[in-house]
Amino acid sequence: MLVQGRHYRTIWLDENNDRVVKIIDQRQLPHKFVVESLTTVRNIVQAIKDMHVRGAGLIGATAGYGMYLAALEAARNGFEKSLPDLAYEISTARPTAVNLAWAVNRQLAAIDGEATIDGKIAIARETAGQIANEDAAYCQAIGRHGIALIAAISKRKKGAVVNILTHCNAGWLAFTDYGTATAPIYQAHDAGIKVHVWVDETRPRNQGANLTAWELLNHGVPHTIIADNTGGHLMQNGMVDLVITGADRVTSTGDVANKIGTYLKALAAHDNNVPFYVALPSSTIDWQLADGKDIPIEERSAEEVKYIQGWQNNRPARVLIGPAASPAANYGFDVTPARLITGLITERGICLPTEAGLAALYPEKKK
Amino acid sequence: MLVQGRHYRTIWLDENNDRVVKIIDQRQLPHKFVVESLTTVRNIVQAIKDMHVRGAGLIGATAGYGMYLAALEAARNGFEKSLPDLAYEISTARPTAVNLAWAVNRQLAAIDGEATIDGKIAIARETAGQIANEDAAYCQAIGRHGIALIAAISKRKKGAVVNILTHCNAGWLAFTDYGTATAPIYQAHDAGIKVHVWVDETRPRNQGANLTAWELLNHGVPHTIIADNTGGHLMQNGMVDLVITGADRVTSTGDVANKIGTYLKALAAHDNNVPFYVALPSSTIDWQLADGKDIPIEERSAEEVKYIQGWQNNRPARVLIGPAASPAANYGFDVTPARLITGLITERGICLPTEAGLAALYPEKKK
Repeated sequence: MLVQGRHYRTIWLDENNDRVVKIIDQRQLPHKFVVESLTTVRNIVQAIKDMHVRGAGLIGATAGYGMYLAALEAARNGFEKSLPDLAYEISTARPTAVNLAWAVNRQLAAIDGEATIDGKIAIARETAGQIANEDAAYCQAIGRHGIALIAAISKRKKGAVVNILTHCNAGWLAFTDYGTATAPIYQAHDAGIKVHVWVDETRPRNQGANLTAWELLNHGVPHTIIADNTGGHLMQNGMVDLVITGADRVTSTGDVANKIGTYLKALAAHDNNVPFYVALPSSTIDWQLADGKDIPIEERSAEEVKYIQGWQNNRPARVLIGPAASPAANYGFDVTPARLITGLITERGICLPTEAGLAALYPEKKK
Repeated sequence: MLVQGRHYRTIWLDENNDRVVKIIDQRQLPHKFVVESLTTVRNIVQAIKDMHVRGAGLIGATAGYGMYLAALEAARNGFEKSLPDLAYEISTARPTAVNLAWAVNRQLAAIDGEATIDGKIAIARETAGQIANEDAAYCQAIGRHGIALIAAISKRKKGAVVNILTHCNAGWLAFTDYGTATAPIYQAHDAGIKVHVWVDETRPRNQGANLTAWELLNHGVPHTIIADNTGGHLMQNGMVDLVITGADRVTSTGDVANKIGTYLKALAAHDNNVPFYVALPSSTIDWQLADGKDIPIEERSAEEVKYIQGWQNNRPARVLIGPAASPAANYGFDVTPARLITGLITERGICLPTEAGLAALYPEKKK
């Protein structure tokens, strides 16, 4: 996607030195665009742990490139002995990100199939690129399916602006390119369909205001940042034509765990007959889970609620909200039951948020 | 109510100079407790506009005292000619607050009944005091009616903690004393009923985190600050027994305009069978309006969304959220339709949010 007019992905190999992994340090966004070089497994783990990179797809891709650096490191220190430790370090960099272990295991299997160390390194490099490319391709496919929804509304409105609300960041910064919730929006905009995006701020970490708004700004998509409280009022007043969010985990029956507050927007959409779609690559589907109530919800530090991180005098700064002595609670996600969701936009197409709907798109997953 | 153990109201006349109106500058809370002196109509209008004071009851009381200062000013500048302009200035200081016009009109009627200018000033002073006292008495009565709801839940839970969620600040800081949504909570706590309050942060201005939490902390009521996104998840998981909010304007049919985001919490309460009550003095009822859709919604500065005001290094500070170039929108209120509300807690008792329910409590308002 575009940053100040130039095309970027969220992770790539340095074109002058293919032993250097480049990422965008997302902690500085939207205020500073900083490209960071990662040359060791330690760098990779740090970048994941401290959230220089975040988002399911990008975490997976970073682990993929991390395993390539691990192969390079292992080649210098006794390959068979040192690779498992490096793999373990990468796959445990964050506790709940399933894509981490998934990417590491895929790399271990690929490496295992090669006989020579040079071969192992080459296959790790290739696999890292494949993981990143597949992620981008899935997002692009989600965009191809989702654009039809936006085009239909645009046609019904005789070309007037289509207003889309999104929550948190399921944009290209969370993947290697295009994003999930944003992919249909970017494609619609590029196709000349008039769109405008209501960007939920997304407290406590403000990923909507900080990341989604920055993405849209750089791509030239009209948008407006709103407090998380605002979406209901907008929907009551006909100011939202469509809601698209991402997902952190989806059950086999179509319940969706996503950033805290998603459920409230789904309720408002349902109450006002606004279509509510969730965009996701199939890697987000937990085929073992049939009930959203069984999805564990991460409780994060109260500090994220009490202190808001922003920008001041050209550097990051935080301010205290509320009395210092008052406690706060910080639930990271909520579960939107399938009954409130109009449809799921996957890389294979759009389906109803039901067991049958998902099974029709992914017949190989049927038990 | 208590501030560091000492009893305060939110507005009073200086005991040494009855031409000086004293208020708590609520913009500094919870970090600094600052008492401010207002001596002119301009001061009053500024204090209302810039939200040194806010909240339906307190805005009404401030307008009441403002009309007393207006009478003093008019006495120096041609009473009959200048009073209407001053009254107009006060009553239009903020668009959505119905209490402004109500207090101004009450004062105009009272002033009109006096023959001499000294008499007019005296009656304006007296009426201002009456408005403030009635406001406190009404809040106390709301507490007496509302405590029964909490007591019943406490009994059902065999004395376990009753979890109450509230949005924004309908506490004593929004009135002259006790508050509306908080009055039943304070009375329950004082009566030894175990309560715990989930305090919605209430972006963009954070009145929940900054004011409600501060009130509860000073009164010793257990509470937890949460992001506005969180309430739905809590209700889905049985962690909320009761929601009580305030109201900025209520129609004769029970629709409620209140701080933006209230509607989302009402939807979540309805979806999870959590009782949702709105506490209000009858001055908040707009008997002329039958449909909440006709309530004008104030649009405030986008700056309040883009910059979050907080506390840093022992002074107020703000940080930029989102890209500087991204626009933001700031709708101040939303309308919760009566169908989502369990009941209205007024100074005369609890009623259904219907025309018949309100008419039974206020038969004199029947057309």
